[in-house]
Amino acid sequence: MHFTVRSRAAVTTVLSSSLGKRHLSMSRARTSPITTFSINGDRLWNDIHHTAQFSAPSPGGVTRLCADDNDKKVRDWFRDQVLALGADYKVNATGTQFALIQGTDNTIPPIAMGSHFDTVATGGKFDGPLGVLCALEVLRSFREQNIKTRAPLVAINWTNEEGARFFPPLGSSQVYAGQSTITAAHASYSNDGSPETMGSELERIGYVGSGPNTFEEFPISAHFEVHVEQQSSLERADKPVGWVEGWEGMTWYEVVFHGADGHANTAAMHGRKDSVQGAAKFMTSIETLAHDMHGRSTVTAIESGPVGACNIQSRTKVVFCLMHADAEGLLEMGRRAEALAKTAASIHGLGHAMSRTLHLLPGDFTPEAVDCVARACGEKGVGARTLTGHDSLETLLVAPTAMVFVRSKDGVSHSAKEWSDKDDCAEGALVLGKSVLNFDEYLLRRK
Amino acid sequence: MHFTVRSRAAVTTVLSSSLGKRHLSMSRARTSPITTFSINGDRLWNDIHHTAQFSAPSPGGVTRLCADDNDKKVRDWFRDQVLALGADYKVNATGTQFALIQGTDNTIPPIAMGSHFDTVATGGKFDGPLGVLCALEVLRSFREQNIKTRAPLVAINWTNEEGARFFPPLGSSQVYAGQSTITAAHASYSNDGSPETMGSELERIGYVGSGPNTFEEFPISAHFEVHVEQQSSLERADKPVGWVEGWEGMTWYEVVFHGADGHANTAAMHGRKDSVQGAAKFMTSIETLAHDMHGRSTVTAIESGPVGACNIQSRTKVVFCLMHADAEGLLEMGRRAEALAKTAASIHGLGHAMSRTLHLLPGDFTPEAVDCVARACGEKGVGARTLTGHDSLETLLVAPTAMVFVRSKDGVSHSAKEWSDKDDCAEGALVLGKSVLNFDEYLLRRK
Repeated sequence: MHFTVRSRAAVTTVLSSSLGKRHLSMSRARTSPITTFSINGDRLWNDIHHTAQFSAPSPGGVTRLCADDNDKKVRDWFRDQVLALGADYKVNATGTQFALIQGTDNTIPPIAMGSHFDTVATGGKFDGPLGVLCALEVLRSFREQNIKTRAPLVAINWTNEEGARFFPPLGSSQVYAGQSTITAAHASYSNDGSPETMGSELERIGYVGSGPNTFEEFPISAHFEVHVEQQSSLERADKPVGWVEGWEGMTWYEVVFHGADGHANTAAMHGRKDSVQGAAKFMTSIETLAHDMHGRSTVTAIESGPVGACNIQSRTKVVFCLMHADAEGLLEMGRRAEALAKTAASIHGLGHAMSRTLHLLPGDFTPEAVDCVARACGEKGVGARTLTGHDSLETLLVAPTAMVFVRSKDGVSHSAKEWSDKDDCAEGALVLGKSVLNFDEYLLRRK
Repeated sequence: MHFTVRSRAAVTTVLSSSLGKRHLSMSRARTSPITTFSINGDRLWNDIHHTAQFSAPSPGGVTRLCADDNDKKVRDWFRDQVLALGADYKVNATGTQFALIQGTDNTIPPIAMGSHFDTVATGGKFDGPLGVLCALEVLRSFREQNIKTRAPLVAINWTNEEGARFFPPLGSSQVYAGQSTITAAHASYSNDGSPETMGSELERIGYVGSGPNTFEEFPISAHFEVHVEQQSSLERADKPVGWVEGWEGMTWYEVVFHGADGHANTAAMHGRKDSVQGAAKFMTSIETLAHDMHGRSTVTAIESGPVGACNIQSRTKVVFCLMHADAEGLLEMGRRAEALAKTAASIHGLGHAMSRTLHLLPGDFTPEAVDCVARACGEKGVGARTLTGHDSLETLLVAPTAMVFVRSKDGVSHSAKEWSDKDDCAEGALVLGKSVLNFDEYLLRRK
């Protein structure tokens, strides 16, 4: 694997916290941009649909894989938009786009608003474009409304959040947070077995730049990200937006079952070492495991060989993830999955090797940043937790970070059926802008 | 699929049969080449090991896929050997090599001895090279021992018997028997999804020739094929060789399960339409089906998508085969497999489509040809049935056909562990030569 197994259970905020008092003082503040700021919901909605054209054929959805031709088109479009705003625009070695707008005190590291334009193969119009487009909308609206922040602002399009074309995901934000290197990110390999790497394809579309790659080179004061919720807690609470308090845990594994070659027609059933039958039993058992443990499990890939018309499959790889709300539950699921793999292998006389490729224990975003989002949401929002990874989990390792959730219809994502209403998207952008203004004020008070 | 679903249950011999009487008359025959003929077991054994070098790296085995660089090398080697024997050598449009040796009456269609040099990806040294090398050894020995047949003889290397690289299998012999066309065979597609076709790769290695493509263009009097047994009936009977009376039935299917796209981490377990979990339950159930019905079943391929790091798999294809000794058993297995696919789909709310890509009911080889082999085996052989397809099942559609089995160690094939002893291989070549002599005599008597 390209990146080290790691846990973020130890990540805790280094910022001091006295939120109750600050919240109180905010409510007594004079009329500020925070109360008057508005965004242009029509323009945002138009951007969402306009950029959805940069897609491979995908009825109702978007298929824009990292560093493909459509990714180049949406990147070019984003560059043109931010240059028109007068942004200081840069692309780094892993293709991430930065659009910097000066503040009134440019000695302060910028407050970042970031997400990703890449989608999965069967993606929708919202996961992650909404986050980048909300950032753009905030920059445009601030300019129109003559709102100047003290800290500079930066809108970011992170490269290869999804990991859909190239593994691993969070390709560029990992480098930014010191969890990977440019070399490793460039070497990210094609999930479909093609020879292209993320580096070769970024080179091909002209998106290997000289901009900053790491937090050390380009520190930020905070990172805020708008994202569709991808589950139904906001729908159930009847709220258009939410502040994201933290994330549930998830672990990714690969297990390879090794059997024995043989003839598909002539070999007797008894005594076969059939790896794909071992894999089938294992897949069924980890589905049951998720129900038993009140967690979730998903098989995301299966590959078997030898390729051919008439072979017992002697090698089968299963890629899967386990998810659980609490750390001990996740660890227990992992232990049980190891035992289930051993059982499935034993039934069919197989060898097996199981490896953990990514491990993320549950954790919390930075309380001060979350508070900025919660206050921006006000009555329109509710607290929530994300059930998956985002670039914000990387920035959290180096800077205060929080996320804004926008209500998802039926919680569906990574699907052409992904949907968020226009007004909810607009509310998300509004909350993002207000969160930034809150954090800008927080920086002043903290000073 | 590239070829029509078809049944051979209706294939019955058109030759009259009075074997008992003929056998009796043979035993009273004067000394003939049939009693004195011998082959050079050392040379055959040397050929087996010499040609095994034409392989991709494959410890202990042979990986020589249809129309790859090693297939070209073994074909070139075979061409050189038969040209050195003075054969009339031709390559047809689908790459099949014919080496014709004149008889004393060349108005008779030649008696053919054929098999295949291509192997599966994890193949051994014997399945099918042994059959072509035995044919070559018979031609050489006949020449050395000055044995002239009345009918001409032809040694054949059939193209793409295995279907391991390009689907469907029996690529060239199907065309010969009028079951497919040159165009369809050339269009045979890569099992691994590569863009190459059998036609483009035969062109690349220089093996698209102008030789005869069909039985009509190049009729044969009979077809004899030596093959390793690929099961253990000869081992159990303690016999080095066997005459193959017929084949067990087998049916190939593809079933595609269609689910719904979704996020691998965030989607709730309940209500998912997870096609790979449906496929897992189906695969397990057809394993049980084989045990229930005293048949056999094998999953030979599984593919799922979308490709990516974080998607519920919305489409999964399973390729599998069912085998049974009798026709009704095979048909019942097929009906039950249909029901099991429906059940698996229902559990997960999936759509599914199942198609039969090849259907072969049990059947028998031509009695007169089988008798020639049985008499050639004598006390050293035993009757057997093959459990899989061979080029001989195609030639049977147009000409009297029979096969010679050579004992397989532990019945293992399509594996680097494939093994037959040197003396058993020599016995197989001897039986092949004697079978041809028997059939040559049979043609004279029938006249």
